[in-house]
Amino acid sequence: MPSTVPVSEAVPRDVLLKAAADVMIEQQSIDISLSEIARKSGLNSALVKYYFGNKSGLLLALVLKTTGPSVAQLRELADMPISADKKIRLHIRGMISNYFRHPFLNRLLLFMLNDQDGIYAERLTEELVLPVARAQRQILEEGARTGIFKPVDPMLFYFHLSGACDALFHGGTTLKYGFAVDVLDETLKERYVEHLCSTFLSGICQAG
Amino acid sequence: MPSTVPVSEAVPRDVLLKAAADVMIEQQSIDISLSEIARKSGLNSALVKYYFGNKSGLLLALVLKTTGPSVAQLRELADMPISADKKIRLHIRGMISNYFRHPFLNRLLLFMLNDQDGIYAERLTEELVLPVARAQRQILEEGARTGIFKPVDPMLFYFHLSGACDALFHGGTTLKYGFAVDVLDETLKERYVEHLCSTFLSGICQAG
Repeated sequence: MPSTVPVSEAVPRDVLLKAAADVMIEQQSIDISLSEIARKSGLNSALVKYYFGNKSGLLLALVLKTTGPSVAQLRELADMPISADKKIRLHIRGMISNYFRHPFLNRLLLFMLNDQDGIYAERLTEELVLPVARAQRQILEEGARTGIFKPVDPMLFYFHLSGACDALFHGGTTLKYGFAVDVLDETLKERYVEHLCSTFLSGICQAG
Repeated sequence: MPSTVPVSEAVPRDVLLKAAADVMIEQQSIDISLSEIARKSGLNSALVKYYFGNKSGLLLALVLKTTGPSVAQLRELADMPISADKKIRLHIRGMISNYFRHPFLNRLLLFMLNDQDGIYAERLTEELVLPVARAQRQILEEGARTGIFKPVDPMLFYFHLSGACDALFHGGTTLKYGFAVDVLDETLKERYVEHLCSTFLSGICQAG
C-alpha cells in the first residue's frame, strides 16, 4: 500500500497524525473514526493500519509525539544549573502550555491512562509517567537538599500537579456554565500558570 | 409497573441506585448496562424508565445522591464560626473522603461534566458546581478579610482543588504501573489529604 504513495514514508505518517489531531479539535471529541481521519488527511484509511496497526496505535503515537518534546525538555530542566523553585515554575508552565497548544491532549491522555485493557499502559508508563515522575523527584530532592523545599512526597506531588494542570483542560462544561467563561484563552492560561506556581511554591518552599 | 412492586416507591428507586453503584465498583467501569443493573438489583429494568426516564437519568440521580450530602455539609461549613484555614482543611478532607467512599464517583462526574450534548450540564451546574464554587468563594473572601489568606481567584482555586482531588481517584493505571501501588487504601488517602492541606494552605496563607 505505501508503495502507491508518492512521498517519503515519514510524510504520510505525520499527515495522518496531524489529521487525527485536527479532527479531534474540530469535533471537540477524542471519539473519532478512521474514515474521518482518512477524509481529513486525503489519504486511504488502510495507511493507518500500515503505519500504526490500528486506531489505538495511531492515538498512542499522537500522544507520544505531542508529549515527547515536553518530556525531553523536563529531563534537561531537571539537570540545569538553576534553583529548584525556578525549575518547578518552568515545569508547571511547560505542562500547562502543552495542554493549551494541544486541546485534545488532556482528554486523550485521561482516556488512555484509564484504559483497563492495558493497551496503552506500558508505553505511556515508560515514555511519559516514569520520566516525568523521575524528573520531579530529582527536582524535589534537590530543593530539599538545598534548603529551598520542605520534604515533599514525590508521588503525592505527581498526582497533585497532574490533576491541577489537567483540571482547566478537561474541555468540560464547568468553565462555561459554572463560571460563564466561553473561551480558554491565553490570558486565562497565564493566570492559571501564575496561580499554580504561586500556590505550589509558597506551599513547598520553607518560610523565609 | 410500580404497582406490581410490593414495596414503597422510595425503596426500588434506592435499590436501583445502589445496584448501579455496586456494578460500577465490581466492573471498575462506569460503562454499565441496564440489564446488569436489573440483574444486580433483582428488579425489572423497566423500573429504570419509570423512576429515572432512562440510564442517563439514573446516572445523574446517582451522582446527585452521592454528592448531595457533601455539598450540604460544605454550605454549613462555610458559615461555621471557625477560621478560614480550618474550613479549607475540612473541605479538602470532605472532598477526598467522598471520592474514597464512592470509587465510581470521580469517573462518573468527569464523564458527565464532559458531556457535550448538555444532558447533565444544567443539573450538575445548579446542584454541584455553583454551590461548591459559592462556598469556596465565601471561605476565600472571609480568609482574605481576616488576614489569613492572600487574595486568591476563586475560579482558579476551584479548578486547582477539583483537579488535585480528582487526580488520585481517576482509577487509572498510573498508581499501579507508575508507582507500583496496587490499592488506594485509607493510609494513602490520609497522606494525600495531609499533602493537599499542607500545600494548599501554606500556599494561600500569609507568611507569619
